[in-house]
Amino acid sequence: MRAVVVLSGGMDSTTLLYDVKSQGYEVFAISFLYGQKHSKELEFAKKTCSLLSIPYKIVDISFFAELAPSALTTPDWNVPEGYYTDSTMKQTVVPNRNMVLLSISAAYAISLGAKKLFYGAHAGDHPIYPDCRKEFVEAMKNALYLADYIGLELEAPYVDMKKEDILRRGLELGVNYSLTWSCYKGGQKACGRCGTCTERIEAFKKVGVKDPIEYEIEIDW
Amino acid sequence: MRAVVVLSGGMDSTTLLYDVKSQGYEVFAISFLYGQKHSKELEFAKKTCSLLSIPYKIVDISFFAELAPSALTTPDWNVPEGYYTDSTMKQTVVPNRNMVLLSISAAYAISLGAKKLFYGAHAGDHPIYPDCRKEFVEAMKNALYLADYIGLELEAPYVDMKKEDILRRGLELGVNYSLTWSCYKGGQKACGRCGTCTERIEAFKKVGVKDPIEYEIEIDW
Repeated sequence: MRAVVVLSGGMDSTTLLYDVKSQGYEVFAISFLYGQKHSKELEFAKKTCSLLSIPYKIVDISFFAELAPSALTTPDWNVPEGYYTDSTMKQTVVPNRNMVLLSISAAYAISLGAKKLFYGAHAGDHPIYPDCRKEFVEAMKNALYLADYIGLELEAPYVDMKKEDILRRGLELGVNYSLTWSCYKGGQKACGRCGTCTERIEAFKKVGVKDPIEYEIEIDW
Repeated sequence: MRAVVVLSGGMDSTTLLYDVKSQGYEVFAISFLYGQKHSKELEFAKKTCSLLSIPYKIVDISFFAELAPSALTTPDWNVPEGYYTDSTMKQTVVPNRNMVLLSISAAYAISLGAKKLFYGAHAGDHPIYPDCRKEFVEAMKNALYLADYIGLELEAPYVDMKKEDILRRGLELGVNYSLTWSCYKGGQKACGRCGTCTERIEAFKKVGVKDPIEYEIEIDW
């Protein structure tokens, strides 16, 4: 059975990709260029897909940065630093981003004759990102099922999981986390100070494993 | 209060544009280039917006034609001819098109601080287009309301209306139907034989009014 995975190149969706493949699906991955400052995440997504021999498609929706500005996409709007649940992190909300990504991914899935569409929303996202909350996922499941004759099924298996539990799952699956990128600043090395970096570092610390990627700052693992 | 209207340039969404404006909203219109053979519809949409002094935005999602092929977008796939409820018309279904258009329009609306998003799905679409059915509209209303903190409200006031009733409404509103385009073939003149042409002609006949646009074939009004 065919399945499409929305792959950002970050820890969670990369773990999900390994997970879905391990369940025996014929997996197709799709990523999006939406004007994100950390578009280097797609290089990592691409490497993971070639490592796993998974067909990989990048869709360019760069118009989105101008249409719906946010700290992730607007050049003169700094990526906030701090703990990932700080309310300042709401500046990194890209208006309706996940519904846009899911709807385009669904069109791709329907055209492939896939019955499943997977995406990696998780519990750590809930305080900040409205389009990662469980009630949104449920509403999208319903809308996607009705959007076409195929009855496409949206799956968000990590929606109740914490990032460290996803990491534990990934380590079981043998995920190569050196081929993942999280930092919203998209610099040479991960900054270690933005919301997604603080969340990533915390997850690795909780699991007691050193993060294989390099950081601009010293991290006491 | 601000409102965004998804405007194709066809009869129904153009009528809806006039309608929403008549209700006192500050209206913004958005159209999409998704690789449709009848992209000339956007010229008509543009003319209507300038006539009504409505800010108008075209979003280019031409990648969609390759991502999710259909008779409306794929060059060597003919637009079927015949009555608009014929099952052959299912070839004109563009996989998940409306959810994609609505989700991007919603991102635009959220960024504008608009509370309402209008789209012109109507009863005549139901037999063929799954993403025009009432249950889909309800599911999308729910998902859009949850997608962001703003609680965006999706409105599809014509979802139970027949095309001829929308036309009657438009004539009351003074809609200039010579500035609307429906024909999926996108030729110099409307073909008069494709599904959307047969539906348009039928609506004008039922209302007893001659359609102001030109057709390739003789029409007995």
